[in-house]
Amino acid sequence: MTFTDIATRTYDHSWRLDPIVRSLLDTDFYKLLMVQMIRRRHPDVDVTFALINRSRVVRLADAIDAHELRAQLDHARTLRFSKKELIWLAGNSFYGEARIFAPDFIAWLGDFRLPEYELRTVDGQFELHFSGPWTHATMWEIPALAIINELRSRAAMRDKGRFALDVLYARAKARLWNKVERLQQLPDLVLSDFGTRRRHGFLWQRWCVDALKEGLGSRFVGTSNVLLAMDADLEAIGTNAHELPMVAAALASDDVELARAPYRVLEEWQASYGGNLLIALPDAFGTSAFLANAPDWVADWTGFRPDSAPPIEGGEQIIAWWQQHGRDPREKLLIFSDGMDIDTIEATYRHFHGRVRTSFGWGTNLTNDFRGCDPDGDAALAPISLVCKVVSANGRPAVKLSDNPAKATGDPAEIARYLRVFGAAGRTETAVHV
Amino acid sequence: MTFTDIATRTYDHSWRLDPIVRSLLDTDFYKLLMVQMIRRRHPDVDVTFALINRSRVVRLADAIDAHELRAQLDHARTLRFSKKELIWLAGNSFYGEARIFAPDFIAWLGDFRLPEYELRTVDGQFELHFSGPWTHATMWEIPALAIINELRSRAAMRDKGRFALDVLYARAKARLWNKVERLQQLPDLVLSDFGTRRRHGFLWQRWCVDALKEGLGSRFVGTSNVLLAMDADLEAIGTNAHELPMVAAALASDDVELARAPYRVLEEWQASYGGNLLIALPDAFGTSAFLANAPDWVADWTGFRPDSAPPIEGGEQIIAWWQQHGRDPREKLLIFSDGMDIDTIEATYRHFHGRVRTSFGWGTNLTNDFRGCDPDGDAALAPISLVCKVVSANGRPAVKLSDNPAKATGDPAEIARYLRVFGAAGRTETAVHV
Repeated sequence: MTFTDIATRTYDHSWRLDPIVRSLLDTDFYKLLMVQMIRRRHPDVDVTFALINRSRVVRLADAIDAHELRAQLDHARTLRFSKKELIWLAGNSFYGEARIFAPDFIAWLGDFRLPEYELRTVDGQFELHFSGPWTHATMWEIPALAIINELRSRAAMRDKGRFALDVLYARAKARLWNKVERLQQLPDLVLSDFGTRRRHGFLWQRWCVDALKEGLGSRFVGTSNVLLAMDADLEAIGTNAHELPMVAAALASDDVELARAPYRVLEEWQASYGGNLLIALPDAFGTSAFLANAPDWVADWTGFRPDSAPPIEGGEQIIAWWQQHGRDPREKLLIFSDGMDIDTIEATYRHFHGRVRTSFGWGTNLTNDFRGCDPDGDAALAPISLVCKVVSANGRPAVKLSDNPAKATGDPAEIARYLRVFGAAGRTETAVHV
Repeated sequence: MTFTDIATRTYDHSWRLDPIVRSLLDTDFYKLLMVQMIRRRHPDVDVTFALINRSRVVRLADAIDAHELRAQLDHARTLRFSKKELIWLAGNSFYGEARIFAPDFIAWLGDFRLPEYELRTVDGQFELHFSGPWTHATMWEIPALAIINELRSRAAMRDKGRFALDVLYARAKARLWNKVERLQQLPDLVLSDFGTRRRHGFLWQRWCVDALKEGLGSRFVGTSNVLLAMDADLEAIGTNAHELPMVAAALASDDVELARAPYRVLEEWQASYGGNLLIALPDAFGTSAFLANAPDWVADWTGFRPDSAPPIEGGEQIIAWWQQHGRDPREKLLIFSDGMDIDTIEATYRHFHGRVRTSFGWGTNLTNDFRGCDPDGDAALAPISLVCKVVSANGRPAVKLSDNPAKATGDPAEIARYLRVFGAAGRTETAVHV
């Protein structure tokens, strides 16, 4: 005899919505760290975040039904932090530090909800904007990206039979586990999951995180996803993002303040957090300019996260800078998180092994690598380069130069001004795939 | 919230036995065809079947608990053909022919149960014998082999975690589907599942059969497993086995009768069945001897199943024989079923394409290929060369010579006598892996 739980089956074939984001903790940890600081230091700054699809050839609005997108975004707006989640945020230690989130911030989170959004469809693409207080608009970045990426996956899956899906996920599991077995050969590996925003889907990200936990043990140090960190008893990983220097730069009153903005942001961060949270992002307006003009105390920070330069060249540049400033790189940390995959992780690990501490934030190629898995071909499930960036602060345009001009965002006239202020040294155009 | 069907979960963690064989139809179709004929022609012959583990290095009784084996064998003895199963056997067409099973045989099946067994453990191996009327003892072959093979798989799985199992089956699915995609390149392929006796497990065989049905469509013509054929609306495939000539030879009163035995069996078969069921097994006592002495009417049969010669050499030998007898090989059928896998299927298909009709019975390497799938290494899940053969008939020893001396079975003195009668022409020793 076959037993079927009739209530479950009935629910499965009749539900109204399968929510993609079911918790406000289903976001990147650095958002919470940044929002706590933003709330304290910049409570009156209004910003706008905008969706940017760098993979223009993929017409997102053709693949995804706008009504489904609205239903998912609307559902996310109904979410509140649960008591359990707030108690965990207040009681857990992060990076070895207890009570990193102050009681007034926890109380503020208790009232938090995602603000409104503006959605339009233009020429096969979505124009999606989130405007409001910086503390609120910024919290849309990760859930909005996760929702759009999973809706695209679901659309690609819609017409597949039960069997094709079975083969597809079997292949994807086999593919990831083969990567895990290669990573097992790197004894001093330090790796974490950075794949929330680009994930194929929530359940798939959870499987990937379970796979790394099972396969790498203590070499898998955690996940940027706060919900998964809580549920799997993993460390929540992350520090800060480009939006901090971008907003500081946008609000600078003149070119002199603009040039100082990247370091002013670090001063604010250092006043809020310490220790392993002192990781600088050097590339918002070009790493070469950042290092050339950085005050000596920046060399006291724990490390850097080069996020747009090629990993080995970018790391060597920073090591040379530490040495110029009399610091021992072996006590420093480099975090690599820009489009890493098994080959570049292996090469970067081996290149730097013994010379500097390294850590890898593995994103898209961890949680959304289905190459060779779909019997119908790779196109529909290939990840796209979709980002959600701050585009203005208090009505002034925000800019990111990056070490890779292909990743620059902002108004062309403003980009030209930033290039005059920061210079273009060391910037190299590289194709952006993910 | 998470919903769990409590009754199911409770059953899962407390069941007494997870039966491996749950239906008497979970056997190879040719057994039913043979038993119907045996019952009509040889109702008084008593035989003994014995388990033979050609992979002596694998100490089966160390891997498998003898009590578990008894529990599974005992459970199989409780099985009866259900009404639904008998109605299907009576009402279904096999090889395009309705009512292939006579009403009196169906009625006889209704009372059938597996006879007793004798089990002993000797030096790390099981001595397992099935004695009784030929009609009954023969029915143990397939369930006994399926039970032992699945118990061995289960033992290999016992200490694996949920995650390791997930990866293992994901890899196995990916591995099989890659074979399916290669088979899709062979437009005139005719392939069936012959993997019941050597399967990793029942559920895995069912998945494999579903995979072939999904991936190959009408090129997957069916399965030897009667239960899966019924449940998946596939053709039941199979005709006859070596036990027919082996018993006929054992009962032969002298060397002259012995030499005639292989053809007498074909006469009996031809009197019972026709059309596509007229497939001869040429290799019981060596294909060269069989062909050299065969009467001309054997060339009127639909085809041959060379089961121990290398497929291309074996096929060429038979084609040459048909041509010598003035028959057009393009109207004839060769069925290849001896340890085939994707490479040999492709090579054999391409070699014979357009010259003779070919069909492939895919066994061990379909339903029990876990090479490279187990993170703990291949040894515990590697299939073994386990057979269950008739060893005596009415107290006289039974012998199989085969085209491959490594597959010969029987008393050495009797083997020597058979070699005198049939000759050793064309026999080539080849390692037997599965």
